[in-house]
Amino acid sequence: MASFGDRAIERMRQLGHPLCVGLDPYLDRIPPPFRRGAMASDRPETAQAVEEFCCRTIDLIAADVAIVKPQASLFERLGWRGWRVLERVIRHARAAGLMVLLDAKRGDIADTATAYAQAYLCADAPCSVDAMTVNPYLGPESLTPFMVEAERAERGVVVLVRNSNPDSSVYQAASTRAGPLFMIVAASLAQWQDRLARGTTGWSSLGVTVAATHAADTEQVRLALPHALFLVLGYGAQGASAREAVRGFRRGPAGLEGGIVSSSRPILFPAALPDASARAWEQGVRNALARASSELGAAIA
Amino acid sequence: MASFGDRAIERMRQLGHPLCVGLDPYLDRIPPPFRRGAMASDRPETAQAVEEFCCRTIDLIAADVAIVKPQASLFERLGWRGWRVLERVIRHARAAGLMVLLDAKRGDIADTATAYAQAYLCADAPCSVDAMTVNPYLGPESLTPFMVEAERAERGVVVLVRNSNPDSSVYQAASTRAGPLFMIVAASLAQWQDRLARGTTGWSSLGVTVAATHAADTEQVRLALPHALFLVLGYGAQGASAREAVRGFRRGPAGLEGGIVSSSRPILFPAALPDASARAWEQGVRNALARASSELGAAIA
Repeated sequence: MASFGDRAIERMRQLGHPLCVGLDPYLDRIPPPFRRGAMASDRPETAQAVEEFCCRTIDLIAADVAIVKPQASLFERLGWRGWRVLERVIRHARAAGLMVLLDAKRGDIADTATAYAQAYLCADAPCSVDAMTVNPYLGPESLTPFMVEAERAERGVVVLVRNSNPDSSVYQAASTRAGPLFMIVAASLAQWQDRLARGTTGWSSLGVTVAATHAADTEQVRLALPHALFLVLGYGAQGASAREAVRGFRRGPAGLEGGIVSSSRPILFPAALPDASARAWEQGVRNALARASSELGAAIA
Repeated sequence: MASFGDRAIERMRQLGHPLCVGLDPYLDRIPPPFRRGAMASDRPETAQAVEEFCCRTIDLIAADVAIVKPQASLFERLGWRGWRVLERVIRHARAAGLMVLLDAKRGDIADTATAYAQAYLCADAPCSVDAMTVNPYLGPESLTPFMVEAERAERGVVVLVRNSNPDSSVYQAASTRAGPLFMIVAASLAQWQDRLARGTTGWSSLGVTVAATHAADTEQVRLALPHALFLVLGYGAQGASAREAVRGFRRGPAGLEGGIVSSSRPILFPAALPDASARAWEQGVRNALARASSELGAAIA
C-alpha cells in the first residue's frame, strides 16, 4: 500500500477534481425514503436508517470521488449502535474503493493520544480509516502518537490549523510575536510534514485544515508547509467559490493539486427536489456532485 | 436535580476532599484477575475485561469520592463494543451515586458541536453523563452548543484552558498582546461562567482545566473566572503536591473548595502489591485512595 498522500493525490488526478464528500447524517435531514418513525437517538431503527442513508450515498458517489469524510459526532450521537454503524459505513466505503477521512477532531496527550491513534489509524482496529482529523490545542508533542501511527500504517493525519467558521479567528488568529497562532501551529508541523513525505512522490501524508474563506491565511500556511495536503473548509455551504477553494494548490501533471475540498450538505441534501422519492433524491445527489466536481475541476485546470 | 456545580461541590464538602478518580483502562495495565487472554482490541472478551475492571473499581471507590472521570479514548480503542462498555460503566457509576465527568475533549462547530453536546449532556442520550471535557480551538462560539445543553440539562462543561503536559505551553502559553493564549480563552468564558452559575449556591457548572504544575497560571485563571470549577491536572503521577493542586481554591464552609483534583493511575494501578490476586489489588486501590484523599483533605483544611 502507498502512503495516504500518494494514494489521495493519485486518485484525485485520475478523477480530475479534488472534491471530497462529507458524510453528515443529520437525523432531521435524512431524506424520507430512509426515515424510520421518530428517529430518536436511542432507537435501533434510527441507527439502521443512518446506515442505509450513508451506504446508499456511498454507492451513488463511489466512482466519482476519491475520499469520503464521515463526521464522528453524528454517529456518536446514537450511542454504541451509532458507533457500530460508523464501523460498517467505513468498511462499506473502503470496499467500494473510497478512502475514508474520519472527521473526529480528537486530541489528547501521551498514552491517551496513542489510544485514539490506534483506534483509527491501526490497520487492525475495529474502526480503521485512511486518515483522521486531530486537534492541536494540547501542544505539538500531543500530536506525535498520531504521526507515529500514521507513518507506521501509511495513513494520514489532518491537523486543525485554520478553520472557516468566522469565530475560529478569536483564538486561531490571536496575534503573537511569532505571527498569528495558526502559524505557530503550522510551523511546528514542518518536521512531521517532511517525515510523512519520505518515500512519496512529493505530497506528504500530513494534512492541515485551511479555510477557503481566509485566502491570505491559506497562502501563509502554504509557505510554511509546502508539501502538506490541505483539507479545504468553507466551500459551498459557507459561501467560498471553487477558485478560492484551490488557493495554495500547486501545478501538477493533471492541473493544480495539493488539497482536498470538502462539501457535505449541498450534496447529501440537494435542494429543490421534485418529490420525496428515493429516485428524486438520488438524481439530486448525482446532479449536485456533478456540479461541484466540474466547478472544482475547472478551477484546477 | 441541582446544577452540576452545586452537586459536585456539595458532595466534595461531605467527603472532605476534592479527589476525582480517572477511569483509564489501559489494556496493558489491567490487573491479572480481570485479564482474558491476549487482550486484543477487537475481541469481545477484552471489552468484557475492561467492563469488569471499571465496574469493580467503581464498587470499591463509590462511597469515598464524588466524581469518576472515564477517559473516552481507552473505550473507543475497542470499537463499538468498547463504546457499549463505556455506556454500561457510566450507568454503573451513576447507579452507585457517583457523578461522571467524561474526559472526551470533544470540539466542533455549529450543528456538529450540538451533536456532541446532545450525545453526552442530554438526559435521554445513550451515553448521558454529568459533565464532559471540551476543546476550545475552534473558537468561543464553537462551545455554545455545549453550554446551552449543559444549562438546559443541569450538566457541566469543562473547557481545556491550561494543561499540565509541559509541551502544552507551546500554544496555550503563546504570548499575545492580551496575555498568554490561555487567558484569552479564559476571558472569553466569563459570560458562560456567569450563566451557568445562575440559581446555584455560588459555584458555576462551567469548569476549566488548570495545571497543578503551573501555579502562577492557575492564579491568573482564578482572577478571570472567580466562580468556575477547576479540573486540576498533574497531581500525583505528574509530580505536583496536594498543596499545589488546590491553588486557586477559596475558603468555603468545609475548607478550601472550587475544584476537582484528578488522579488515575496511582489509584487504579497501585504499585508494589504483595501478589497478583484480586484481594491484593483491591487493598492496594483502597490504600492509594485513602492516601490521596487524606493528603488532599489536609491541603484544603
